[in-house]
Order: sequence, then structure tokens, then C-alpha cells
Amino acid sequence: MATQETAQRARHGGREARRRERTQKAAGLGRPYILRNIPTYDILSEENLERIERAADRILAETGIAFRDDPVALDLWREAGATVEGELVKFEPGMLREILRSAPAEFTQHARNPENSVRIGGRNVVFAPAYGSPFVMDLDRGRRFGTLQDFQNFVKLAQSSPWLHHSGGTICEPTDVPVNKRHLDMVYAHLRYSDRCFMGSVTAEERSEDSIEMARLVFGHDFVDENCVILGNINVNSPLVWDGTMTKSLRAYASANQAAVVVPFILGGAMGPVTNAGAIAQSLAETMAGCALTQLVRKGAPVIFGNFLSSTQLKTGSPTFGTPEPAIGSMVVGQLCRRLNLPMRCSGNFTTSKLPDAQAMTEGMMSMLAAIHCGTNFILHSAGWLDGALSMSYEKFMLDADVCGALHTYLDGITIDDNQLALDAFAEVGPGNHFFGSAHTLANYQTAYWESETADNAPFEQWELAGGDDAATRANRLWKQRLREYEAPPLDPGMDEALKDFVARRKASMADAWY
Amino acid sequence: MATQETAQRARHGGREARRRERTQKAAGLGRPYILRNIPTYDILSEENLERIERAADRILAETGIAFRDDPVALDLWREAGATVEGELVKFEPGMLREILRSAPAEFTQHARNPENSVRIGGRNVVFAPAYGSPFVMDLDRGRRFGTLQDFQNFVKLAQSSPWLHHSGGTICEPTDVPVNKRHLDMVYAHLRYSDRCFMGSVTAEERSEDSIEMARLVFGHDFVDENCVILGNINVNSPLVWDGTMTKSLRAYASANQAAVVVPFILGGAMGPVTNAGAIAQSLAETMAGCALTQLVRKGAPVIFGNFLSSTQLKTGSPTFGTPEPAIGSMVVGQLCRRLNLPMRCSGNFTTSKLPDAQAMTEGMMSMLAAIHCGTNFILHSAGWLDGALSMSYEKFMLDADVCGALHTYLDGITIDDNQLALDAFAEVGPGNHFFGSAHTLANYQTAYWESETADNAPFEQWELAGGDDAATRANRLWKQRLREYEAPPLDPGMDEALKDFVARRKASMADAWY
Repeated sequence: MATQETAQRARHGGREARRRERTQKAAGLGRPYILRNIPTYDILSEENLERIERAADRILAETGIAFRDDPVALDLWREAGATVEGELVKFEPGMLREILRSAPAEFTQHARNPENSVRIGGRNVVFAPAYGSPFVMDLDRGRRFGTLQDFQNFVKLAQSSPWLHHSGGTICEPTDVPVNKRHLDMVYAHLRYSDRCFMGSVTAEERSEDSIEMARLVFGHDFVDENCVILGNINVNSPLVWDGTMTKSLRAYASANQAAVVVPFILGGAMGPVTNAGAIAQSLAETMAGCALTQLVRKGAPVIFGNFLSSTQLKTGSPTFGTPEPAIGSMVVGQLCRRLNLPMRCSGNFTTSKLPDAQAMTEGMMSMLAAIHCGTNFILHSAGWLDGALSMSYEKFMLDADVCGALHTYLDGITIDDNQLALDAFAEVGPGNHFFGSAHTLANYQTAYWESETADNAPFEQWELAGGDDAATRANRLWKQRLREYEAPPLDPGMDEALKDFVARRKASMADAWY
Repeated sequence: MATQETAQRARHGGREARRRERTQKAAGLGRPYILRNIPTYDILSEENLERIERAADRILAETGIAFRDDPVALDLWREAGATVEGELVKFEPGMLREILRSAPAEFTQHARNPENSVRIGGRNVVFAPAYGSPFVMDLDRGRRFGTLQDFQNFVKLAQSSPWLHHSGGTICEPTDVPVNKRHLDMVYAHLRYSDRCFMGSVTAEERSEDSIEMARLVFGHDFVDENCVILGNINVNSPLVWDGTMTKSLRAYASANQAAVVVPFILGGAMGPVTNAGAIAQSLAETMAGCALTQLVRKGAPVIFGNFLSSTQLKTGSPTFGTPEPAIGSMVVGQLCRRLNLPMRCSGNFTTSKLPDAQAMTEGMMSMLAAIHCGTNFILHSAGWLDGALSMSYEKFMLDADVCGALHTYLDGITIDDNQLALDAFAEVGPGNHFFGSAHTLANYQTAYWESETADNAPFEQWELAGGDDAATRANRLWKQRLREYEAPPLDPGMDEALKDFVARRKASMADAWY
């Protein structure tokens, strides 16, 4: 018990952190995840949702989806009654919906610290860091290839943030480790430097299995068989292709009763049509097929319905992120997902900006607020994403995590009761007077307003005297401070040894592969 | 006719602008205002809305609102049946609602170029620049007091923007002109350098009357008596005080059948309670009283229900802007305003940042999207606001106007028809192929995606070679280019003479006053 308390204090580091933690507790913040208290933003009528569903059904029945290099997946589809023509699979309307009825609407992903377990689905919202960048970037050193050190840093920064709920997965590629061994170091870092939930590797079937096996060393084999402790982010090769690497990893997670996050990757104009309705229909078709496959592997296995819409700048072919069309599209995908009664994943702070600047946050907010409004349960890419996912930014990580903080308060919505309505305060203060010292203010100020860690609200002169820094510069100081203050959460030494031993044995069994 | 075409071309300036205009026309953009095609985001139940309405009714009946230094207003309230105790006015529940039934739900504000007239109310959305800053700011010269030259520049930039619909009012204070004469130069600038709708002065009764009189010189006395051609932004002196300067200006606008924009100014913790529900109830009470007064002055006069909620950083007392509580609050005020069947004003890109940086756009987007979602019809402060309204920023103006562009597409929502659903495209392209060259893409690419003027979507290497600029630096180049390319819209020389003559006569009639 003493150890856990020490660990909790240590996690947020130092006196300042303890003060912050007290304030957060008082404000009802610093929670393992958010239970949303505002409705979803539903923009499309039932009739139009049904038209999209029928379009998806036609894509599935007439065009079909290719499942490449995975005969087992084809067998599963054949047994389930789909039409298999070579690697092309076609589905009767309604078939996938029927299969998906066995998937849970909501489930718990367990963290090794039970206080950090998260509930995925329903009205719950979980923020996880960005995923998959080959580069990292900070204001001091600019852009460079990511290393294991960077990866560990981001695990530590996520663990230290009061506003992120999840350690994520491949936060950045540790490019200084051989490709076939990275997953071992990444999963170890999540388990050692964080006590929050995390995601495993998916880049090869055996790497998925290694990831799950490492989770078993911590959680126990039987527990893992009955509970979700690890997620795997499984991408469609849009348009309408599932490749074998992905479906084999999907099967590895599902057969271990772990949750696959099934995500298309649709940049309109390239991997999908340039029209929003068509891209959404495609997304629905691709995601339903992937989610249904998990149920054929293991009925009742948890699965998350993913959404990833974006657009392209058509005159150059460059991807664009954080634009209005995918934001609107996400709202519709949210409605469609709820009609399937599945937990949903969406992407957070998207941008193509190369710097943590005005563009980055404009696009990021457009994208993140759509994820919030559409009712997403698991928001990947909540913090750090820059340059179209090519860079993980230290500064943007802090700025985005701060946005996640604001969104805690936002999702709390509004409470209507006598204290909140403050009628006594008006009687006390009266016309023309200030509320600063009123009894109502004194009784409520501690929980009154969310406070940003990166914004500067000081008067101009005071800000100027203090150096006149921009938000990115303040974020630069903040991530360094957090890393300095970081202390690892406790991990049972026996478990740690077992993990290290597993990593060493697996590494010794393979020659280095660099591509 | 030829003149008008020339003027339209000139307004957007140059070959690049013409190309842009063609693209916008093709995309159905570049409109005088937006007709929203997505629903409002309603977050509160009928029951809770009624609780807030009852709280507002209690504030009005029990605490009351002070109307200072305006005996005429007190007489109007007395005649309408309110209880007047000295300067304090108390209202029976339901009384203001009853008076407000004569106010139009929707009206047209006419521009001197009829193509630029805007419809305010209903599902219409109008973007206007920020209002009221004493300072201006740009990357080259930093912060400094605003001048008439700056004011004219911003009128020109608003006129040149394809995404703003309105010329606004006191975009920045022209501090090089005496306080008592500024309004003449500002109204002249709106009428000379823009052919869009605009707002007049409100800082004194005679300045309001001068503003309206100048509008009459352009639109004609009879037309103005029957149509709205000018708005006046009238602020409550929150909490619960209407001062005489404001109510006299409100009466001047209403009696001329011009629209008062009635806006509280509630920074929670200072001019209102720290709890959101209470601040909203107060806002409702204050705004209903101001709007109702317009109807006592002239039944049926157009009036706009304003919303201005923000918060304070309680440990320092500094105002904060773009925080989550007012964003949520705005959504609720939107619902309450629709129950009154009045057109609504909200604020756009709020921030306390001192630079056009990540903080500025994070807070700006939080605030602007709330204005969009809550169903606002007239969004003041859509572009340029910096430093808690103390500075008008040239660069942020361009960045914000770009956001307004994105919001055109956002508010268009999604169309569901056979072409948008793209079923033929899936049949044509099939699994695993690209949509770039497909018939569906070729048929739709011109109207496919909104394109930002300030975002950089290029690959990192290309962006770096081109200088590695941030968004603010690109915006700096853009506003200078726009001012270089600007050409004034045509104005009848006789009208221009009449306006100049009026300004000269009014200036000659007054000694300079500098405070």
C-alpha cells in the first residue's frame, strides 16, 4: 500500500505535481478515463444513415473485399457462408451485421495498476498518444529518426500526463533497434515505464504473439484468456484489401481474447472516392469485415470499430489532415458505429504542419473535436502527431495533452442544480458588483475552471517581460521538466526479470533484420 | 454592369485571385453568407433548459436589473408594467418573453452591393471580423496602438476575403483620431473601402445617430426606415447593469429600425458566478432585458440576442478565453435563444495568446466551433482577435479567415445521393487500386475538398527547402499580398461626396476630445 502511494506521488513528480494533483482531485479530474456527460453530435437522419448502410452492403456484395495471403481467413469466411472467389470475398447483405452481434458493446482493458484500467465503449472516452511515426522532433534538435530513447521518453511523458489515459502503442519507431526486435523493446517499455494500458505490435504474426506473451508474463495466462489487457491496431490496406500480415495479427489478438482495433486508412481521392458519402460507405464496409473476422476467430472477443478518414490535396496528391470533410465524416461514422453497437476508435490531433504552430493546432482541434463529438471511445493520436504522422513532436505532445485536459471539462458538460444556478449569489452580489469575494465564489472556486498548463493568460506586459515566449517554447520547457521529474511506477522485480529474460531469449533467437 | 464585374474581379485582385474565385465558384463557395446544412448541437434537456429559464426569471423578478442614467428607458419599463425602484427594474416572470414576441426571428441586413446583403437568423451564418481592440499587431512591427490606417487596412482585408461576409464595426480603435470623431472615419471607411454590411458606433448617442445618418446618405432615408442597413453592438455592463450610454445608443438604433446586437460581458468569477449554469441564467436575464427594450422603443425592430461567456484564471484574476466552460455554455445559450425565436450573435476566435501561435488557434478553435455548433447566426470576432481583445492581429486575421473558409465546407455537412455514394467508382476501381484517375474522381475533383490558403501540406523536405516557415509567417506574406492587390469597390461619386461632406461638417462642429 505504502509502495503504491509512493508510486502515485512519484509518477507526477515533486511538490508542484502534488499541488497540481490536489487541485485536479478537487476538480474531479485526473481520472483513469472519462464518462461523457454530453450527448453525441448526430448530424445525419436515419434515412440517410440507411442509404449509407445499403451502399456499404452493395460494396460488400458486388465488389467484395480481397483477403490476401491468409488461407485461414479465407476458410473462416467460407465456413461463415461468404462467397470466396480466389482471394476475393463477397458478403450477402446483413451477413456481417449478424456476425457482429456477438462482439461486446463495451469492455474493460486492464492495466497492471488496476486504478488505471479503462472502460472502452458506451459513453467512455480514453485518450492515447499518437502512433507510428518514423521521426521525432523537438525545437532543440529538429526532425530526426526516432530511437528507443525517444520511445521511452514518450512512454514516460504519457505516464506523467494527468490527461492521457493510455500508454498507446508504437508511439514512434525506435529505428535504432532491428525491425524484427523492436516490438520486444516497445512492449517492455510500456510495461516497465508505465502502469497504464497499452497496445502491442502488429507488424508480423509472431510479433503480435510475442506482445501478447509478454502481457501474459505480467497478468497471468488465465487472466489474459478471460480479460483484455492489450490492444492491437490492425489496418485495412484500403481500398477493400486486407493483407495477410494484418489478418494474421488480427487473428492472433482475437484468438487470445485481446482486442483488435480495426481501422481503414482512407485518404479520399487516393484510397477512396473524393466524395465523403462514398468514403464513409467504404469505411463501413472495410471495418465491418475486419471486425466480423475477429468474431469468426473467437466469438465474443472484444473488438474496436475504427475510423480513419482524411483527404488529399488533389493538385499535388499530398495527404491533408484536420480538414473539414473528414471531421464531418467522422460524425457520420460515429452514428453508423453506434447502430452496430460496437466500441469506436477515432483519431485525435491530426495535422500536416511540420511545426507545433498555428496550423498544427487549427487542424488538430478540427480533428480532435470531431472525435469528441462523434462519440468515439478510444482516441488514438490524441497527442504528439505532426507532419501527417511522419513525426512525433515533443512540444505538440504537451500542447495536445493540454487539449485533452480541456476536453475532460468539456465532456463533463454542464450540471444544473441550485448551487450551479447560483441564485443566492445574485441575491448577495446584486447589480454592478463583482463576484470575486462572494460566498458562492469562495465555495466553488476550487472546482470552478479547468486550467491550462501551456496557455499564457498573463497581461501582455508581464508576458513580454517574462521573455515573450510562444506556446511551443513553453511546451518545450514543460516536457523537459516532466522528464526530469519522472519516476518509474513500481514493478515487481520478479516480473521485471521474467520480461527481461523473455526479451533476451527472443532477441537471441533471431538475426537482426533492418527492413 | 461592366463596372460591377470589373469591381468584383478587382476585389479579389490579380490572376491568382481569379483562379481561386473560379475554384470557389465551382465548389459552391464564396457566398454572401452560409445556410447551414447540419443541425445544431443541443446538449441540454428541455427540463434543464426550463430550470435555467426559471432561474433567469427569478433574477429578473427578485434581484432586478439597474438601468442607469437613462430616464427614458425607465419610463418605457414603467409603461410596460415593470416595477421601477429608483434605477432598479424588476420584471414579472414571462413579461420579457411576451414583449420579445414582436421581434423578428430573421431579417436581412442590406449591403450597398445587394449581392453582399446577409440574412441574419434561422439557419444562416454570417462571419464578421473582431471588434474593439486598442492595439494592432503584426510580425514585423509587434504591438502598437491602432491607427486609422490600420482600421482601413482591416476593412480592405475583410472585403478581400472570400470567407468573411461582413465588414464588422470597430475592428480596431483608430487611436490617432480624436475619440469623439473616430466613428465618422470608421463608418466612412466601411462605406468607402467595402461594399459589405457593417456596424456603426455605439459609444455615445450622437455617434450612433451619426452612424445611422451616414447610412441614410447611401441607402436613402425611406429605405433605412424600412430595412436594416447597420448594426450597433450594445454591451451590458454585467452583472445586471445597463448603463445610459448603451441604452441611449440601443434606443437610437431601434428607433431607426436598425438592429441592436445585445451582448452581456460575463467573465465568470468577476462579472458573473464561477458556475456555468449561473452565468448562463444571468446572460439570459441581461440579454432578454436589452432585447425587450428595443421592442418597447419600436415594436418589430430587428434585434440580435448576443452571447459572451468567458472565465477568469482565479488565482490571478486574468480573463481567459477559448476555455471549455464557455464553449459548453454557448451551446446551452444557443438552445435558450432558439426558444426565444431570436437571431443569435456569438463570438468567434477567442484567445488570450499574445502571438498568432499554437495557443491562439487552440483556444480560437474551441471557441469558434462552439459558436458554429450552438447555431449562432452572426459570429462577431471571427477573425483577428488576439490577447483577450486587446490586439487586432494581421496574421491571425488571415489564419482565422482561413478557418472561416473551412467552416463553409463544414456547415455544408454531407450530401447523400448516388454520385456522392460513388458506387460506380467502387465497381470501376475495385480492391487495391487507386482512385486518382477514376471517372468518378475526374467528375468530382473540382468540388471535392476545401483548400486552405495558410496551411502547408507539402512533404517535409519541400517545405524545408522553401524556408521552413510557420503558419504565422505564411499569413504575414498573405495579408501583405492582399493589401497590394486590393482595389476599392466602386462607389457613386455623389454619394462619396455627400459622405465626405457630412464627415467634414460633423468634425468641424466639435472640438477634439481625446478621452
